Amino acid sequence: MSTSTDQCLFEWEFGESTKMNDDKMEEVEREEEIDPESNPVNEPLLKRNRTLSSNPLALIGEKVSYIESLDYEINENDLFKDDWRSRSRVQVLQYIFLKWLLAFLVGLLTGIIATLINLAIENIAGYKLLAVLKYIHKERYLSGFLYFTSINFILTFVAAILCVCFAPTAAGPGIPEIKAYLNGVDTPNMFGATTLIVKIIGSIGAVSAGLDLGKEGPLVHIGSCIASLLGQGGPDNYRIKWRWLRYFNNDRDRRDLITCGSSSGVCAAFRAPVGGVLFALEEVATWWRSALLWRTFFSTAVVVVVLRAFIEICHSGKCGLFGEGGLIMFDVSNVTVRYHVMDIVIVVVIGIIGGVLGSLYNHVLHKILRLYNLINQKGKIHKLLLSLAVALFTSMCQYGLPFLAKCTPCDSSIPESACPTNGRSGNFKQFNCPPGFYNDLATLLLTTNDDAVRNIFSTNTPQEYQPMSLLIFFVLYCILGLITFGIAVPSGLFLPIILMGSGYGRLLGFYMGPHTNIDQGLFAVLGAASLMAGSMRMTVSLCVIFLELTNNLLLLPITMIVLLIAKTVGDSFNPSIYEIILHLKGLPFMDANPEPWMRNLTVGELVDVKPSVVTLHGIEKVSTIVDVLKNTTHNGFPVLDDGVVVPPVVGHANGATELHGLVLRAHLIQALKKKWFFKERRRTMDWEVREKFTWVELAEREGSIEGVAVTSEEMEMFVDLHPLTNTTPFTVLESMSVAKAMILFRQVGLRHLLVVPKYQASGVSPVIGILTRQDLLAHNILTVFPHLAKSKSRGKRN
Amino acid sequence: MSTSTDQCLFEWEFGESTKMNDDKMEEVEREEEIDPESNPVNEPLLKRNRTLSSNPLALIGEKVSYIESLDYEINENDLFKDDWRSRSRVQVLQYIFLKWLLAFLVGLLTGIIATLINLAIENIAGYKLLAVLKYIHKERYLSGFLYFTSINFILTFVAAILCVCFAPTAAGPGIPEIKAYLNGVDTPNMFGATTLIVKIIGSIGAVSAGLDLGKEGPLVHIGSCIASLLGQGGPDNYRIKWRWLRYFNNDRDRRDLITCGSSSGVCAAFRAPVGGVLFALEEVATWWRSALLWRTFFSTAVVVVVLRAFIEICHSGKCGLFGEGGLIMFDVSNVTVRYHVMDIVIVVVIGIIGGVLGSLYNHVLHKILRLYNLINQKGKIHKLLLSLAVALFTSMCQYGLPFLAKCTPCDSSIPESACPTNGRSGNFKQFNCPPGFYNDLATLLLTTNDDAVRNIFSTNTPQEYQPMSLLIFFVLYCILGLITFGIAVPSGLFLPIILMGSGYGRLLGFYMGPHTNIDQGLFAVLGAASLMAGSMRMTVSLCVIFLELTNNLLLLPITMIVLLIAKTVGDSFNPSIYEIILHLKGLPFMDANPEPWMRNLTVGELVDVKPSVVTLHGIEKVSTIVDVLKNTTHNGFPVLDDGVVVPPVVGHANGATELHGLVLRAHLIQALKKKWFFKERRRTMDWEVREKFTWVELAEREGSIEGVAVTSEEMEMFVDLHPLTNTTPFTVLESMSVAKAMILFRQVGLRHLLVVPKYQASGVSPVIGILTRQDLLAHNILTVFPHLAKSKSRGKRN
Repeated sequence: MSTSTDQCLFEWEFGESTKMNDDKMEEVEREEEIDPESNPVNEPLLKRNRTLSSNPLALIGEKVSYIESLDYEINENDLFKDDWRSRSRVQVLQYIFLKWLLAFLVGLLTGIIATLINLAIENIAGYKLLAVLKYIHKERYLSGFLYFTSINFILTFVAAILCVCFAPTAAGPGIPEIKAYLNGVDTPNMFGATTLIVKIIGSIGAVSAGLDLGKEGPLVHIGSCIASLLGQGGPDNYRIKWRWLRYFNNDRDRRDLITCGSSSGVCAAFRAPVGGVLFALEEVATWWRSALLWRTFFSTAVVVVVLRAFIEICHSGKCGLFGEGGLIMFDVSNVTVRYHVMDIVIVVVIGIIGGVLGSLYNHVLHKILRLYNLINQKGKIHKLLLSLAVALFTSMCQYGLPFLAKCTPCDSSIPESACPTNGRSGNFKQFNCPPGFYNDLATLLLTTNDDAVRNIFSTNTPQEYQPMSLLIFFVLYCILGLITFGIAVPSGLFLPIILMGSGYGRLLGFYMGPHTNIDQGLFAVLGAASLMAGSMRMTVSLCVIFLELTNNLLLLPITMIVLLIAKTVGDSFNPSIYEIILHLKGLPFMDANPEPWMRNLTVGELVDVKPSVVTLHGIEKVSTIVDVLKNTTHNGFPVLDDGVVVPPVVGHANGATELHGLVLRAHLIQALKKKWFFKERRRTMDWEVREKFTWVELAEREGSIEGVAVTSEEMEMFVDLHPLTNTTPFTVLESMSVAKAMILFRQVGLRHLLVVPKYQASGVSPVIGILTRQDLLAHNILTVFPHLAKSKSRGKRN
Repeated sequence: MSTSTDQCLFEWEFGESTKMNDDKMEEVEREEEIDPESNPVNEPLLKRNRTLSSNPLALIGEKVSYIESLDYEINENDLFKDDWRSRSRVQVLQYIFLKWLLAFLVGLLTGIIATLINLAIENIAGYKLLAVLKYIHKERYLSGFLYFTSINFILTFVAAILCVCFAPTAAGPGIPEIKAYLNGVDTPNMFGATTLIVKIIGSIGAVSAGLDLGKEGPLVHIGSCIASLLGQGGPDNYRIKWRWLRYFNNDRDRRDLITCGSSSGVCAAFRAPVGGVLFALEEVATWWRSALLWRTFFSTAVVVVVLRAFIEICHSGKCGLFGEGGLIMFDVSNVTVRYHVMDIVIVVVIGIIGGVLGSLYNHVLHKILRLYNLINQKGKIHKLLLSLAVALFTSMCQYGLPFLAKCTPCDSSIPESACPTNGRSGNFKQFNCPPGFYNDLATLLLTTNDDAVRNIFSTNTPQEYQPMSLLIFFVLYCILGLITFGIAVPSGLFLPIILMGSGYGRLLGFYMGPHTNIDQGLFAVLGAASLMAGSMRMTVSLCVIFLELTNNLLLLPITMIVLLIAKTVGDSFNPSIYEIILHLKGLPFMDANPEPWMRNLTVGELVDVKPSVVTLHGIEKVSTIVDVLKNTTHNGFPVLDDGVVVPPVVGHANGATELHGLVLRAHLIQALKKKWFFKERRRTMDWEVREKFTWVELAEREGSIEGVAVTSEEMEMFVDLHPLTNTTPFTVLESMSVAKAMILFRQVGLRHLLVVPKYQASGVSPVIGILTRQDLLAHNILTVFPHLAKSKSRGKRN
C-alpha cells in the first residue's frame, strides 16, 4: 500500500485537516533530506523536533471507540504470588476442569445457535422463494417482483435498524476486530450480550434477504461473543458472581476462550472442524500454545457432534424446509479425479487469475469502504438508507436478470422429476420456461447463497450452464460483492468471494473443457479457492476448509497448487483483505515480522522522541498519585526506590536507585478506591495487603480516576505501592534495535516494555522510557522518522 | 516422571557414580528442609553451597556427542548491519527466490527418495515373500523357514552393520534429535551425507527384513538431512562454495529448511501433505511463523506431485512389484458411517483403553530403552548382536505362529480369485491351508507391515479374523514393538503403534460387533488412532494424518473424540514418548510452559549459584582473550566499556560503565585467526572491519581455540571487539522470575540471556550474569534448589 492510501478511516472523522498538514510537512522535509552525502547510512538522522504520537481511537464494527491494550502478561506482584501459592491442588484441578467445561459449552452453544440460524434462514428464505415461484408459475411476474422485493426490503430493514440503533459493533464480519483483540487490543462493546443478539437476528435477516453476504464471518463473531460471555459469567449487568468463574475474568483466560469461540464459529459455518482450528491458528490468533490447540480442537469436536445430532433430528422432516444435506456442505466426492501433466498448466492459470482478481477485489473494496465511510458518518439515517438501497438493487438484479437468459431444454439423461424443478432448491429451475426447459440463470440467482454455490459446484453436468449466464452471474456478483460488504448489517466475506470465484472458475472450465478432463464443477471449486487465496491470503486453513467442504481428498494436490500460486500473485500487489480492513479501522495490530528498517533504529532513539517517562516512588504520597493519574493518560508507571543499599554480591555502592517494577493505572485506582492509605511512610506486611485486595479483583479492568473521591486529609497520606507492583516487567537496553524489541513485544504478548540505560553510574535513572504497542507500529514510527521509509520497499526478510 | 527415572542415559556412561551420591545427598537435605515452620512459603531458601551444573553431552542416535546451542537470534553487530544495508533489491529478491527454490528441491528430492525406498522395500520384501510362499505351497516348511529367516537375518545385518560402524547417528527414528535441533540444540553429525546414505540403505534393509518398525520416522530424518545438505551446498567435504548459497549457512535459515524437510518426510511417509505440515507444526518445530507455514506447505505440495507422478508411471507395471495403491494408503472410504448416540459410548471406551495402553507402552519402552543402553554401551559387537537377536526372534514368530491358527473357509460371497490368495499381497492368504480355506494369522503376519495394516483395516469383512488370531497378533506386536525400537537400525515408531492399536481395536470390534453398527475395520482404525494419541499425544496433526490415510471424512468426529480422550488419559500418567526419549538422550529441550515453581525463583538467585560471569573490555588485550577462551567453556562474553561519559539525556554522571553487548566465542576465534590485532588501544573504522571479515563467515560455526597460534609478540597487542559485538542482546532484570525469563528465552529463541542489576549506582557491574539453555532447564535447577520440587506436582497452569 502506498502511504497515501495508508491513512486510517477514523482520521477522516477526527483529524482529517491536521493530518493533511502533517503530510505536506513530511513531503517538504523528506525532499530536504534526500541528499545522500549529508546522510551516511550508518547514522540514522534523529528528528527530535517531533514526538511520537499515538491515536487511541479505532472503528469497532461501525462505531468509533476508545481502544487500549490488554494485559496478556502475568502481573507478578506480591498478591498474585500469594494467591497462586494459596491455591490448593483441588482448586487447581477445579480451575482446569472449569476451563474444559467452558470450552465444551462454547462448542455446544455455538453449534446450537448456528443450527438455529441455519434453520431460520432456510425456512424464511425457502418459503419466500416458494411463494415467488408460485407467482411466476402463474405468470404474475410483477406481483412476484413486488413480493420478492418487499420481503427482502423488510428483512434488510430489520437487520440494519438493529445494527444502526442498538449495536453498531455488530455490523460487518467482526473477524478483524477479533484478530485485533487476540493481538492484544481491547475492543470495547465487541463481545457484549446486545451485540450477540443483534448479530444473530441481523445475520438471519441479512442472509434471508438474499444479500450477497455470508453467515460465516458473523458466526465467528457469535462464537467469540458466546465464549466471552460465558467466561465472565453472563452479560455485564447480570453476571454470575461465582467465585470460580471470576478467575476467568482476566485478559489471558478470556483470550483463550475467544480463540475457542472463533474456531467453533468457523467450524459451525463450514462444518469443518479441522479447518476451523487451522483458520483460528493461521488467520485469527496471534499467540498459540499446544494446550490451546488442543482445547480449540475439543470445542470444534463438540460443534460437529451438535451439528450432526441436529442433522439426524431434522432428517425426519421436523425442521420445516431445513434438513437436507449432511455434514459435507458442497459435496463433489462423486467425481473421480484423474489429471495429467497438461492439467497442471490449467491449474496454474486458474491460480494466477485468482491471485490477480483477488488483489483487484481487495483494491477496489478498499476504495469503496472509504467511500462508504464518508456516507456512514453522516448519521444513522444515511447508514440505513445505504443498506436499503443495496438490498433493493440486489433484489432487482436477482429477480430481473434471469429473464435475460434463454431457456435450455432438459438433458434426456436426467429424470423428469429433477429437471425442471419448481421447488425451493434444485439444480434446474423452471422459472419462466415452458415444461421440459429450465432457466440456468434462475438456478444461480433465485435461490439462497448456499444453494447457489451447491448448484454451480454441481459435477458431471458439463452442459448445464450457458457461458452468457455464467458471465452475467460473475459480473453481478462482482458488483454485489463490492457494494454489499460495507453496509451496516452483519456480513461475512467468505461466501461472496466463493460465489465470485466459482463463477469465473466455471466460466473458465466451459472454455477449457475440450482441452482437459477436469470436471466443470471442479473448475468452479478451484476458481473459488483461488479467489479466496488471492483475497484472504491463507493457505493451509483454506486448503483444509475446502477439503472438508467438498469431501474429495484427491483434489488436494491441485487445490494446494492453486492456493499457493494465487497467494503468491496476490501478495505481490497488496496485503490481505483483513490487513486492509484492520488498517482502515485504525486498529493497532502488531505484525509478526518487523520492517527491515527497524534494525537501523534503537529503542533509545524511539524513547527520545516520546514525552519523558513518569515514575513513582515505592512509597508515594496520595496527592502525587492522584496528580499523575489525572494529568497523564499512561496506563503503567515504573516504581523506583531511592537510596537503597546494594547487597555485596551485586556491587559495592550505597544510595543506589532501584527499579522495583511497574504498577498499572488500574491498580493505582483500586488502591485509591479502597483507601489503601497510611499516615507514615512505611512498607506494609503481606497480610495487610491480602486483607485489602484479592488478586481476582486486580485482574478485572474497571474504574477510572473520575470515580474516585479523595479528601484533602487523605491527600497528605502515603500509599505503599510495593505489593501492587509487578516486580518482573520485561526490559530492554536502550541500545536494543526496534526490530528485536518488537519481536519481544509481540512474542511474549506485552503491554509495556521498559527501556533501561546501558550505562551503570550514580545519577542515571534506572529506567529511561516505556514503549507501548502504538510506539512500535511501523506507521507511527515513520511519522517521526520519515527518512527510514526510503528503505521500506526493501522487502521483509523472513 | 519421578525423579528416580528422570536421569539421563548418558549418566550411566559418564557420571553414574557421582550422580548416585548426589541423589543420596539430596535425599538427606530434603528431609532436613521439610519442617514447614522454618521455611515460610514467601522466602524460598537459597542454597548457595552448590553451583548450577550443566551437562554438555547427549546421545545423538546411538552416539554420545558434545552438544551446544544454536544461534537463532540475529547477531546485530556492525558487520551484520553493513552487510544487510549493502544488499541491493536484486540481491534480496535473489535470496528469496533461492529460498523457495531450496524448498522446492527439498520436496522434490524427498519425494523421489521416498519413492525409491518404497520401490526397493516392496520389491525385496515382495520377492522374498513370494519365494517363501512357494516353499509353503510345496509343503517344504523347514526350507521355507530357513530361507525366510536367513534373508531377514542378512537384511538386518546390513542395516545394523552400517549403523554401528559408519553412522551411529542414523539409528533410531531421528525425530527426537530433529525436535531438539529445531528447539535450538546443535546435534552434531546428525544431518551429514553419511548419515543420509546409511539411513536410506538401513531403512530399506530393516523394513524389508520384516522387523516391526516403520519407515516414517527415518523418512522425516531423511527429509531433514536433504534439507540441511542442500542448504549448506553439499556434504561437508565437497561443498559448493557459491556465494549465494553461503547466505544459507547460518542457523536461522538452516532451521527453516529443516522444518520444510521434516514435514516433507512425514508427507512422503503417509502421503499426507496437510498432515505433514501439521505434524511439523505440532510436534517437531518450536518456533513457527506464517511465512514458514506457507513454505512448508509448498514443499509438501511438491512431494505429493512427485509421489503422484511416480504412481502414474508405476501403474503400467514398470516398477516390479511396486505400483499398486494410489495416493490413499489405507482407504476405508467405502464404508458409509452412520453412528448413533450409543456408539459414542463405545468410542469413549476405545479412547480410554488407547490412552491407558499408550502410556503403559511409554512406560515399558522407557525401561527397555534404558536396559538396551546398558547393552549397547558395551561395544559395537553387542549392538550388532542385539539387533540380530531381535531379527531372529521376529522371523521365527512371523513364520511359526500362523501354524497355530485354524484354517477358515472362504466366504462364498468373495470371488475365488480373491480367496484364498498365494500372491504377495491379498487379504486371504492360503498359507498351509487346503484350497478354499485361508489362514487369517498368515494374512496378518507373513506380509509387509504396510500390507498388514491394510489387511487389518479391511472393511465389510466382519467374519474375516478369528479373535484368537487377533489376540496372538496383538500380543506379538506388543512384544515386538517394545523390543525392536531400541536396536541399532533406522526405525520409526508410527507403524509399530498403528499395528498394535489396530490389533486391539479390531479385537474390541469383534466383541462389540453385536452392539454397534460401526464396521470392524473402523474399529481397527480407531484403535490405531487411540494408541497413537495415547503414546505420542498429538491431536490435530494425527487427526489430519488419519483423515488423509483413510480418506473418510465422515470418520472425523469420532476420530477427534477418540484422540482427545486417549491423549487426556495418557497425559495423566506420563509424558509423551518423544519427551521420554528426549529426556533419556539427555537433550536439553526447552518446554513451552514453565513449571509453576519457577515463578518463586528469580534469575538473580539463579545467577548467584553459577560461577561469576567473565566479561571482556571493548578493546581487549590479545593475551586476555586467549586466556579466557582457553580457561572457560563459555560461548558468549559480555563486552563492557569503563569510564564512559554519559550523554546528558540519560543522566548526569561521568565515568560510567557501559554494557556494549555480547561477543560470541566463535567470533573471538575468528578475530584471533584473522589476526585482527592493533598495537595501540584504539577503536577501528567501519571499513577496516569490512576488509577483514564478512558477515557470512561470522555466521558459520567453525573453529576452536586449539587451532589458533598466537605469537608472544602478538599477545601484547589489542583487539577492538566493538565491531564484532552483538549490540542488541536480550536482557532481564535480576528480579525477573525464572518462569518469565524462560518464556522470553524460548519464545524469542535465544542462546544467551544477560542478567542486569535492578540497581543503578556507580560500582555496580552492568551485567551480573548470563543464563543459557541449560540453566533454565527444570531438571538442572532442581538439583540446586531441591526444595522447589515439592510444589512440582501442582500441575502447570495453561
